[in-house]
Amino acid sequence: MTLEEKQAQLVGFWVDQGNELVAPMAGEKRTSTRYEEATAHGIGHLTRVYGTRPVEPIERASWLWGEQARLQRETRLGIPALVHEECLTGLAAWKAATFPTPLAWGASFDPDLVEQVGRAIGSSMRTLGIHQGLAPVLDVIRDPRWGRVDECIAEDPLLVGTVGTAYVRGMQAEGVHATLKHFVGYSASRAGRNHAPVSAGRREVEDVLLPPFEMAVRDGGVRSVMNSYSDIDGVPVAADPYYLDEVLRGRWGFDGVVVSDYFAVDFLRTMHHVAADSAQAAALALTAGIDVELPSPDAYTTLAAQVRDGSLPESILDRAVGRVLTQKEELGLLDADFTDPPREVDLDSPEHRGLARRLAEESLVLLSNDDILPLDPSASPRIAVIGPNADSAEALMGCYSFVNHVLAHHPDVPAGIALPSVLDALRAELPSATITHAVGCEVDGEDRSGFPSAIAQATEADVAIVVIGDRAGLFGRGTVGEGNDVDSLDLPGVQRALVESIVATGTPVVVVALTGRPYALGWALPPRATAAGTNAGLGSVNSPAPAGRTSPTEQPPLPAAVLYGFFPGEEGGSAIAAVLSGRVSPSGRLPVSLPRSAGAQPYSYLHAALGGRTDVTSVDPTPVRPFGFGLAYTTFEHRDLRADETVTAGQTFQVTVRVRNVGSREGTDVVQLYAHDEVASVARPVAQLVDFRRVSLAPGAEQVIEFAVPTERLAFTGLDGVRRVEPGRIRLWVGSACDDVETSATIDITPAP
Amino acid sequence: MTLEEKQAQLVGFWVDQGNELVAPMAGEKRTSTRYEEATAHGIGHLTRVYGTRPVEPIERASWLWGEQARLQRETRLGIPALVHEECLTGLAAWKAATFPTPLAWGASFDPDLVEQVGRAIGSSMRTLGIHQGLAPVLDVIRDPRWGRVDECIAEDPLLVGTVGTAYVRGMQAEGVHATLKHFVGYSASRAGRNHAPVSAGRREVEDVLLPPFEMAVRDGGVRSVMNSYSDIDGVPVAADPYYLDEVLRGRWGFDGVVVSDYFAVDFLRTMHHVAADSAQAAALALTAGIDVELPSPDAYTTLAAQVRDGSLPESILDRAVGRVLTQKEELGLLDADFTDPPREVDLDSPEHRGLARRLAEESLVLLSNDDILPLDPSASPRIAVIGPNADSAEALMGCYSFVNHVLAHHPDVPAGIALPSVLDALRAELPSATITHAVGCEVDGEDRSGFPSAIAQATEADVAIVVIGDRAGLFGRGTVGEGNDVDSLDLPGVQRALVESIVATGTPVVVVALTGRPYALGWALPPRATAAGTNAGLGSVNSPAPAGRTSPTEQPPLPAAVLYGFFPGEEGGSAIAAVLSGRVSPSGRLPVSLPRSAGAQPYSYLHAALGGRTDVTSVDPTPVRPFGFGLAYTTFEHRDLRADETVTAGQTFQVTVRVRNVGSREGTDVVQLYAHDEVASVARPVAQLVDFRRVSLAPGAEQVIEFAVPTERLAFTGLDGVRRVEPGRIRLWVGSACDDVETSATIDITPAP
Repeated sequence: MTLEEKQAQLVGFWVDQGNELVAPMAGEKRTSTRYEEATAHGIGHLTRVYGTRPVEPIERASWLWGEQARLQRETRLGIPALVHEECLTGLAAWKAATFPTPLAWGASFDPDLVEQVGRAIGSSMRTLGIHQGLAPVLDVIRDPRWGRVDECIAEDPLLVGTVGTAYVRGMQAEGVHATLKHFVGYSASRAGRNHAPVSAGRREVEDVLLPPFEMAVRDGGVRSVMNSYSDIDGVPVAADPYYLDEVLRGRWGFDGVVVSDYFAVDFLRTMHHVAADSAQAAALALTAGIDVELPSPDAYTTLAAQVRDGSLPESILDRAVGRVLTQKEELGLLDADFTDPPREVDLDSPEHRGLARRLAEESLVLLSNDDILPLDPSASPRIAVIGPNADSAEALMGCYSFVNHVLAHHPDVPAGIALPSVLDALRAELPSATITHAVGCEVDGEDRSGFPSAIAQATEADVAIVVIGDRAGLFGRGTVGEGNDVDSLDLPGVQRALVESIVATGTPVVVVALTGRPYALGWALPPRATAAGTNAGLGSVNSPAPAGRTSPTEQPPLPAAVLYGFFPGEEGGSAIAAVLSGRVSPSGRLPVSLPRSAGAQPYSYLHAALGGRTDVTSVDPTPVRPFGFGLAYTTFEHRDLRADETVTAGQTFQVTVRVRNVGSREGTDVVQLYAHDEVASVARPVAQLVDFRRVSLAPGAEQVIEFAVPTERLAFTGLDGVRRVEPGRIRLWVGSACDDVETSATIDITPAP
Repeated sequence: MTLEEKQAQLVGFWVDQGNELVAPMAGEKRTSTRYEEATAHGIGHLTRVYGTRPVEPIERASWLWGEQARLQRETRLGIPALVHEECLTGLAAWKAATFPTPLAWGASFDPDLVEQVGRAIGSSMRTLGIHQGLAPVLDVIRDPRWGRVDECIAEDPLLVGTVGTAYVRGMQAEGVHATLKHFVGYSASRAGRNHAPVSAGRREVEDVLLPPFEMAVRDGGVRSVMNSYSDIDGVPVAADPYYLDEVLRGRWGFDGVVVSDYFAVDFLRTMHHVAADSAQAAALALTAGIDVELPSPDAYTTLAAQVRDGSLPESILDRAVGRVLTQKEELGLLDADFTDPPREVDLDSPEHRGLARRLAEESLVLLSNDDILPLDPSASPRIAVIGPNADSAEALMGCYSFVNHVLAHHPDVPAGIALPSVLDALRAELPSATITHAVGCEVDGEDRSGFPSAIAQATEADVAIVVIGDRAGLFGRGTVGEGNDVDSLDLPGVQRALVESIVATGTPVVVVALTGRPYALGWALPPRATAAGTNAGLGSVNSPAPAGRTSPTEQPPLPAAVLYGFFPGEEGGSAIAAVLSGRVSPSGRLPVSLPRSAGAQPYSYLHAALGGRTDVTSVDPTPVRPFGFGLAYTTFEHRDLRADETVTAGQTFQVTVRVRNVGSREGTDVVQLYAHDEVASVARPVAQLVDFRRVSLAPGAEQVIEFAVPTERLAFTGLDGVRRVEPGRIRLWVGSACDDVETSATIDITPAP
């Protein structure tokens, strides 16, 4: 291969980008290279062939097959391009199914179902000749102010890793390579500001941020990884061989391809200022381990010349080229035949919609319920369905859905898939009800002119369902999503005032939130009744706050129920209606703490004792509802937790716990096993999820859940910088959430012989 | 020495603590050991002999001399105790002078004056037989939500280090040992919550948090250091030999004594959970390098037994004992004579009050002035002096002042020093004015019942002076101070509403803030007129915010002037009156960014490009007034910055800049030289203070300021973890604040041969 042929394999080309602008940084980064020129020596990737504009997938496939054949025919080596696409909440293509956003995957605590979703997405991609999907996002949530929180699964590494790895397995079972994003640290940016520097020590990175990636590499066999834009402690990950090479490949044995996040290579020059020019940026990134520059040829166009003039060793170039060619070989690209493009596709089949619906149903989190839910199915109630998200299709979907990511720029183009809103779905679900609708207000902005008619409708109704929340979008075109960070965690706009106005009518109110982040909804929730004791370090969320300026004032009348949804996808409206009607039991659990205020951030349930409520600070950072919390239409009791008395470090221990449905309705519990290392060589979290299980139980039924917990889940980075399982006593408990101890036991980890 | 004699030298005894409770954690930590028992084998320190209760200093001295003589006489070795005391804003003793709080030292940019203050405090201590003072606090401010921000000097390490080292020099010139607090990381606790874990990488610690300590050790020759309560990346500093031994002693050559922050040794067990019992906590701390446990015998009472049973090497014990005895020898304690206690002392002499007044005058920061200040001295105006801090002595002083720290528990005991309030001082300063006074509201709380009379007074006045701000106290007894962290940076209580009500009267309003932290006062300030261009990375603070939810709304009428004071001490009222009258020119500069909101924290002016305002986040973290900002009654112009063209790494370079008073009044400028490393191996701050100089100029006068800047000020921790000066181009500028480029130049650092 010539140097130019090698260089060509290390870049993508964004064919359509000339017509579109999807990000502020994309503007100045549009490549000036023409497509024919860029592909003269072959090309590594084709970027977002389907996901840039609303194009008829089948027509686009026909173009793509022709293009691949041309590359085979007209370039000397005849190597086709690897085609990658966004696919976080479904394939980012027109008319493709849109699944719930990753926060909803986390809320479901159901990796098996997410694996099926991954498989469904992968099958659509394979059909269209797409080889690599830019998902999942395995960033552990560290600050809810960040706009990209809706793309993340949870604030717990085990949950992120388990669910994320399931997605990888599903997609890759279809022969499509998944891509782990964003390796590593992006979610821990300062104050949740997008791209801001990460202040984290090596131990926090190793013990909190890296584990999901390790799971997806080691257990999921993921084939690609994308770097984080961030710098950690001053070193941009895109230029850091420690993470990209030493940890990823050396320690974990990853042998796939590392691709750059879009524009990230030249950001070493323009954003991080660690490179004087694009050539230096390219050399830094390639040497550190960024094999492929995306989305288009930019800094990596200097590589051939740098090798030629001796400033860059050819071995560094060859290392990346070898990886790319190996990947193309694995994908069958080197022997592919492009004579037979697909003639018809259904990217939103009933099977896909069924999966989207099940995942949506499992993801809804019931935060409070003053006996109003489920709605009485025998009655013929008058229902006022109010709020900016009640009749909004866009409100069902996250920032990386095709609708919100791409169609936002094409307002005249229809979604191309059925997107029944909550209002539509309620009308279908409750045919005997009399349903009225008022918007009340927009998601954002100060306009209250819609309040009076909403109030009037609510006044005349038996129940008001107020659907509020976010609008996902990119860079200023939404209240959440990429670039839409916040310095307040109050609901956007005047939505709180709308809810309060409707509650003030006296009509019982069910609040339904469709959001991309957890909001400070303490004002809408009653004091929490914990099932049992609470864990000291996490604090009881309802005991009086310590003296100071955060003491609560008297609470006005409350909504009768709050159902919290993270963008639940194309079947989200139907899922919400099914839960409200009681046809489906709510079973989601909070994958992220529901915060008290933005000013108390960052906060994570995974904090050492001094990171929670203490006597030495007047700020109470404990959330208004904790990680793992979620009500059902019945009640579960957890008893008789039994664990092995001892376990050798490195081995697996057994835990059993009895869960019983003590209510009168069927329901699904998420049994969550938490652990705390009582004394360790470094400060350890007061609670850490070590296993979980969804279990459905009839009224009165009980089941003994068996957990086999590898002690590695309790590993942490010791004083010597090595991650290992440390001998010592571990407290284990199960309850209704991370801070609720219904039944507990201890186990002693003994040293490995 | 017996093991018991050695152990005894490593603990303090808080004689009076049985009667007092100064901190929540103190309660459970009261020693059960009786004094006679604890001192049977001698004692290392006596704790807060003067600063625990309001005792007549001269009587207490008499007791202390007797006690020291008894220790000489009745213990086998006859070693007197080292007596330590708090002294941050003056000796913490009844009737002693109270100087401005450290934030005010920072605002003065006047290390020479702070050195004189340190000397004054040291002389009072020496007179009373106190050997060691628990100050200065060298924590670099990282988050204004933290309650202890008022104890810190600035958010810039050079300013903290220069001013803090000056204090050390002054105090130690009097033979009293200073103590650096809190080594290291305390100020970087998560979300500014007291004692919360620190998420910081090694580089951030080395390059931002450690430099002030290094300056005070290397340049100031400080004799003692106190540990930080914090854990950094999971490792409590009290158990970390890296900082306490390798950095402090190995790298910097410190050979004094490390004392524990109060109760910090056993916190390894109770708070950090890295020790199973107090013996393990003691062994961890002593081994890491905590030589002396304060305030009282607690975990260290296990040391003798641990040596005896072989679990702790005696050499570790001896190392600490040797340091303590060396310190006592240095202090002359081993040969001291205690037959002649002082007969009379004046702890608040005219000389001390004069220093307190000068420092207060230099520390006041004029944030805005619509030509109302200085007040016309020839007129006989009607002035309404309004607000909760207008006639408050306590509002002049920080959390560690004797009045707010100790007398808060003794409401019937007078301060014992003159503390003229702003109201008192204005009456004295403006004898021909007609002055009325109304409180309006309290500092905290929701009570607006005082608004009407305040409004009425303002309406009838020619000018209203509204004095608002904080009340310093400990643990819930104030709005700022130890334990009084916040999740909002709005003014406490209804003070903003009070100011707005007074402004609404149409009477011109001068707002005077007496605070312990920077508050989000954007609502009270006009758009900022920058003298010249602004530095890209820091952003212009008044250009429109990026699209999103933070866009400003139309601004209502504003106060005519805002004068910002950080607790200015016993002469603070007089200093404020002098500045308002124009007898003294305002010359303070913000030592900390005046924030936009709590939800955008943490923020520091010392951020890399991506830590500021960018196109990829909707949150604008830039402050409403930046670090270094402050107006005068005249205007200064900066021109003709000249720097050497090149300098060898490790050498010192010369910079000159011309400053001219282009206004019509005398004034004092703080000429601030900033630098930016344009391309570096790690992400570097967009601005960094590298030198500064106070200069007073008559109208029309100009002066050429010469700076000799050691290149070490630009050193940072490279990719290999070693801190060094890296060759490359440095941009230098001078302007009205950190983000204001009036005149600039570049210099190339060349490699050392």
